[in-house]
Amino acid sequence: MNHEIDLSQYKIRTDLAVEAIEQVDDKTKIQKKSYEQDHIKVTTIQLDEKNATSIGKKPGNYITIEFQDISDYQNRENVKKVVVKQLQELLQICNIKEQDRGLIIGLGNKKSTPDALGPLTIEQILITNHLFILDTPKDGFRPVCALTPGVMGETGMETSDIIYSVIQTVKPNFVIAVDALASQAISRVNKTIQMSNTGIHPGSGIGNSRKEISQETLGIPVIAIGVPTVVDAVTVVSDTIQYLHKFYAFQKKFANSPMHKMIYNGQVNYLKKEVETNETEKKELFGILGNFNEEETKALIYEVLTPIGYNLMVTPKEIDFVMKNLSDVIGNAINQALHKKVTHL
Amino acid sequence: MNHEIDLSQYKIRTDLAVEAIEQVDDKTKIQKKSYEQDHIKVTTIQLDEKNATSIGKKPGNYITIEFQDISDYQNRENVKKVVVKQLQELLQICNIKEQDRGLIIGLGNKKSTPDALGPLTIEQILITNHLFILDTPKDGFRPVCALTPGVMGETGMETSDIIYSVIQTVKPNFVIAVDALASQAISRVNKTIQMSNTGIHPGSGIGNSRKEISQETLGIPVIAIGVPTVVDAVTVVSDTIQYLHKFYAFQKKFANSPMHKMIYNGQVNYLKKEVETNETEKKELFGILGNFNEEETKALIYEVLTPIGYNLMVTPKEIDFVMKNLSDVIGNAINQALHKKVTHL
Amino acid sequence: MNHEIDLSQYKIRTDLAVEAIEQVDDKTKIQKKSYEQDHIKVTTIQLDEKNATSIGKKPGNYITIEFQDISDYQNRENVKKVVVKQLQELLQICNIKEQDRGLIIGLGNKKSTPDALGPLTIEQILITNHLFILDTPKDGFRPVCALTPGVMGETGMETSDIIYSVIQTVKPNFVIAVDALASQAISRVNKTIQMSNTGIHPGSGIGNSRKEISQETLGIPVIAIGVPTVVDAVTVVSDTIQYLHKFYAFQKKFANSPMHKMIYNGQVNYLKKEVETNETEKKELFGILGNFNEEETKALIYEVLTPIGYNLMVTPKEIDFVMKNLSDVIGNAINQALHKKVTHL
Amino acid sequence: MNHEIDLSQYKIRTDLAVEAIEQVDDKTKIQKKSYEQDHIKVTTIQLDEKNATSIGKKPGNYITIEFQDISDYQNRENVKKVVVKQLQELLQICNIKEQDRGLIIGLGNKKSTPDALGPLTIEQILITNHLFILDTPKDGFRPVCALTPGVMGETGMETSDIIYSVIQTVKPNFVIAVDALASQAISRVNKTIQMSNTGIHPGSGIGNSRKEISQETLGIPVIAIGVPTVVDAVTVVSDTIQYLHKFYAFQKKFANSPMHKMIYNGQVNYLKKEVETNETEKKELFGILGNFNEEETKALIYEVLTPIGYNLMVTPKEIDFVMKNLSDVIGNAINQALHKKVTHL
Repeated sequence: MNHEIDLSQYKIRTDLAVEAIEQVDDKTKIQKKSYEQDHIKVTTIQLDEKNATSIGKKPGNYITIEFQDISDYQNRENVKKVVVKQLQELLQICNIKEQDRGLIIGLGNKKSTPDALGPLTIEQILITNHLFILDTPKDGFRPVCALTPGVMGETGMETSDIIYSVIQTVKPNFVIAVDALASQAISRVNKTIQMSNTGIHPGSGIGNSRKEISQETLGIPVIAIGVPTVVDAVTVVSDTIQYLHKFYAFQKKFANSPMHKMIYNGQVNYLKKEVETNETEKKELFGILGNFNEEETKALIYEVLTPIGYNLMVTPKEIDFVMKNLSDVIGNAINQALHKKVTHL
Repeated sequence: MNHEIDLSQYKIRTDLAVEAIEQVDDKTKIQKKSYEQDHIKVTTIQLDEKNATSIGKKPGNYITIEFQDISDYQNRENVKKVVVKQLQELLQICNIKEQDRGLIIGLGNKKSTPDALGPLTIEQILITNHLFILDTPKDGFRPVCALTPGVMGETGMETSDIIYSVIQTVKPNFVIAVDALASQAISRVNKTIQMSNTGIHPGSGIGNSRKEISQETLGIPVIAIGVPTVVDAVTVVSDTIQYLHKFYAFQKKFANSPMHKMIYNGQVNYLKKEVETNETEKKELFGILGNFNEEETKALIYEVLTPIGYNLMVTPKEIDFVMKNLSDVIGNAINQALHKKVTHL
Repeated sequence: MNHEIDLSQYKIRTDLAVEAIEQVDDKTKIQKKSYEQDHIKVTTIQLDEKNATSIGKKPGNYITIEFQDISDYQNRENVKKVVVKQLQELLQICNIKEQDRGLIIGLGNKKSTPDALGPLTIEQILITNHLFILDTPKDGFRPVCALTPGVMGETGMETSDIIYSVIQTVKPNFVIAVDALASQAISRVNKTIQMSNTGIHPGSGIGNSRKEISQETLGIPVIAIGVPTVVDAVTVVSDTIQYLHKFYAFQKKFANSPMHKMIYNGQVNYLKKEVETNETEKKELFGILGNFNEEETKALIYEVLTPIGYNLMVTPKEIDFVMKNLSDVIGNAINQALHKKVTHL
Repeated sequence: MNHEIDLSQYKIRTDLAVEAIEQVDDKTKIQKKSYEQDHIKVTTIQLDEKNATSIGKKPGNYITIEFQDISDYQNRENVKKVVVKQLQELLQICNIKEQDRGLIIGLGNKKSTPDALGPLTIEQILITNHLFILDTPKDGFRPVCALTPGVMGETGMETSDIIYSVIQTVKPNFVIAVDALASQAISRVNKTIQMSNTGIHPGSGIGNSRKEISQETLGIPVIAIGVPTVVDAVTVVSDTIQYLHKFYAFQKKFANSPMHKMIYNGQVNYLKKEVETNETEKKELFGILGNFNEEETKALIYEVLTPIGYNLMVTPKEIDFVMKNLSDVIGNAINQALHKKVTHL
């Protein structure tokens, strides 16, 4: 094997700020806070111009909400509560007023389940804008309208063109855009909601007509809400190699303790235990493969899977049910965060 | 009963030109041609400024295609063939060139079956516009894009605002808009396709912001394709009263002829027989009710049904299957009329 | 016109007991009670063998719940409450015990909106039977399973054959079957729920293999829940003729009173006022048509509309939204009536 | 790491006969033939009692059809043609006569896209059985009925119970059951159709009531048609490790040849080149990991991923479109194989 792998072939690109900053060398300069509540972890990152540039992200506020299985009703309600709270804080940071008109945009393809988060969320949104034209506004509600622009294959048009022109006609005071993302970690698929005030880049950008939808280009706050719903095979393999290393170190330390065996019987979540891993061990376990860091490993696997057509983007088998639950959580959280009178979780 | 019925309460309004001109006194001045082929009747009407005003329609070309049951495969293919031909003629009348970019708009509510003709048709449309951005155009195809703007209850926005703004961004050379209509005759429900080059007035027009989408307002041809899919209870009753009168006259003339009885056994389509009806007979049959002309009769039934909440807009029970067939016919006819290379019916 | 109309040509057949008993001459012998609550009218009829035979119905208990628009949330909840209560009473009458296993059957065609009430209701049913096989049963729940047998056009099989064979395998202690019905009155379409313990006759009964699903044939209680969702054009016309007569009598009595004009301005619901109508008036108003009673009128309209193909079965334009609400009401009411622990309306 | 892995923890179980026989030591005794046509590979395996037992399969005929991307129209038509031919041969092997009545069963959950192959296929099936009850049979057609039994979570009943009871009532002469499968190889996901005459074991088999649906239990031929639509993460990783080894060997042999570099530029499908791999190389490349054979590697990865909850069953992102194409191919192939008169591909 030729060891001079061209890493640029496999650009580590991620939609998630929490993943991006893991690649930064000096993390001390990044403002990051987190807390946990009902087994839900919330991380807020504030990127200034300099930090943002260094990780290829836009400056602004990023909020990441990590949770476990939301097919459970109680857990789903807990996540909804956290999303409402964080979204309200973000609305405040963006200086959005109580009566400001909002446009909610559901990005993605409604006919492709893993990409349908946006359109499915729009179906949950309480539409009120037209009532404000007809009647005197009711207390506790604000004008909200919604757009499902579709994807280029359905419309033949640049998605950003559609959004841009509708915004210029409807003149909302702010935008919230919901979209499905790709993840760089198995562990985050369908288990992370990211919110930010840094705008969106919808669609494919064919022909260079791609327009950013953001505060800079439109002069109004653009909040993005995203959930990673797919992961590529490269990531599945690369993550498993990391886990295998941790598992190996863990087993070496504990596996022969009779007490341990008695208690755990092989079913222990070793990721939650602090066990040091080291490079010698890695080479022992993986041979030449052990010489590569994570980025190089991914680049190698990419090089292996791509020419034979197996670097699939994959999604869990249960995606239909997951999308139903996620769009319920996000749609209802938006309704609650935007209208004072909507209080039922 | 107070015989002074205020007819303005029940404005006879129809989306179909063939229905509108039936109310005109001097029909000789209206340019109207028709032909029949494979049991499909095609009527073309050309309205000049003056004639158009007199019947409350816009001047321009109206083509009406009347057919029977299209759940039959062969009949469906025949109708498709006629729609292709007529649409091609209309494109020519509008001076639309072979390479002109078209925007197809599917009006209506995809969640309400009788109103879903537009959105369902869009699902059949061959989208090519984005391929023209990417590649060199292929011979025999033109750039086509599509929009499903939704209804105000879903979006909170004026439908005409959405359309208007997208047109201004995408800058098509012409528009084709597909919509479900209301009919003034049971006999036309799901059995008539009307095409015209006179533009559309989408949406509810709340707050006076309603915009006409037409050659006048946009400077490009706007072709409308509509099918009546609903009818109100007033029309069902009023039509039946007319049929009852014809049935009565028919029976009086033929019913006692033993030959007739032997042959038809009550199952004759008396509408296809020319039998004269007269006013005396009508009063004999219907009493006071027989004194009213069709417009007055409708106004009366409207007055009777409205206060008790029974002037329903109704649609045949089989509407799901009918919509599937109609959107197949119209969508594929548009594809064929717009692209030389699409020849499969 | 030949006045000797053969009434057998148009058999007045109705799925609703409240409609059927209106045709009985001596109503005093029929046990009938009714009450009203939150603008919902509940009528319970108990038919013995003799009364049942006279109106072509099966003996047993019939409960009719009549309500207004359930697109309103509060009204929907009120109706749900009444359905739960009446269904619980019916379960008691049928001697169904707290732990008895129930099979819920959703009759009809899920691809045809006005016929999809059964399949849509099944989607709301809490399925618990398999949990009772796996685990110890939880307090407050009973084993419930569900079947959507489809229609003959989808399966090629007699629907009653499918149901019969599944019942013999699963051996439930009772059956609840939900179906869409045809109505003999505009006023009842989508506004009446009928429940009875008299079984069902599913499907078309082609080839005489039709099997009744009832206590008699299976030895277990079979509860039927039905909602009229369609009406034929004959009924729309016939009902309107009755209303016209009442409207005429009402106008004659009140229309010239200045007070009346001032107050009602033509929008009065004259059906709620007691105004006598008489035969002379009817003939004056309708001429020869006025000589017919309701049954004869329907027979005549049937004779007029059928040969020309216009005796459509129709449904209101809003049927998609209505089906969503009705299946929500019935599905959740079944869940609550069957499981003690399900208390949320 | 404890090297004594308990392999029974990770039972290598596969639905595909072609995968199962790869695990057999002496393959010479198995009757296996294959041919290729239009880039479609067809393998037929005949398992006798003894061979079948050795690989945990049932004796009978297995036909495997392997193909590439069927989003391409022409390729889809080619696959359809092959499926028709092979299915006709299987019908002949099973001694099914031209007028025999068939029951087509669509297994799986219609609400979960990767599991919806069966229900989606049923929607394509030409239902004719009821026409044979009504009319004289038409030449060139046979009676066909169809069943979509649902899954236990929807019905609360054992799927095999539903099927069993319907078969006993309808008494078909043969059964064809369509289902989505799990694969043991990335390369086969959505790219393999297996047909066999060895029956099915539907459903979960809770409570030991699970019934096999086969010639043995029912006395009629039961043909199974399956497509692997999901794969587990263990397989993705294990397959990639194999590919990495082959890639390594391939690179060592060719990568430094300037000619090779010039021609392939890294995009060569090295799986199609015969390059020997060896054990020394494997240990050099993978260290300790290189000591394991495929089965042991899978067992290890299973042990690593399961306790942390990441052994997901995954499916490609495009699953909605793939299911549409696959159900079109299988449904129409069944129609053509069963009815002489259906000739359009």
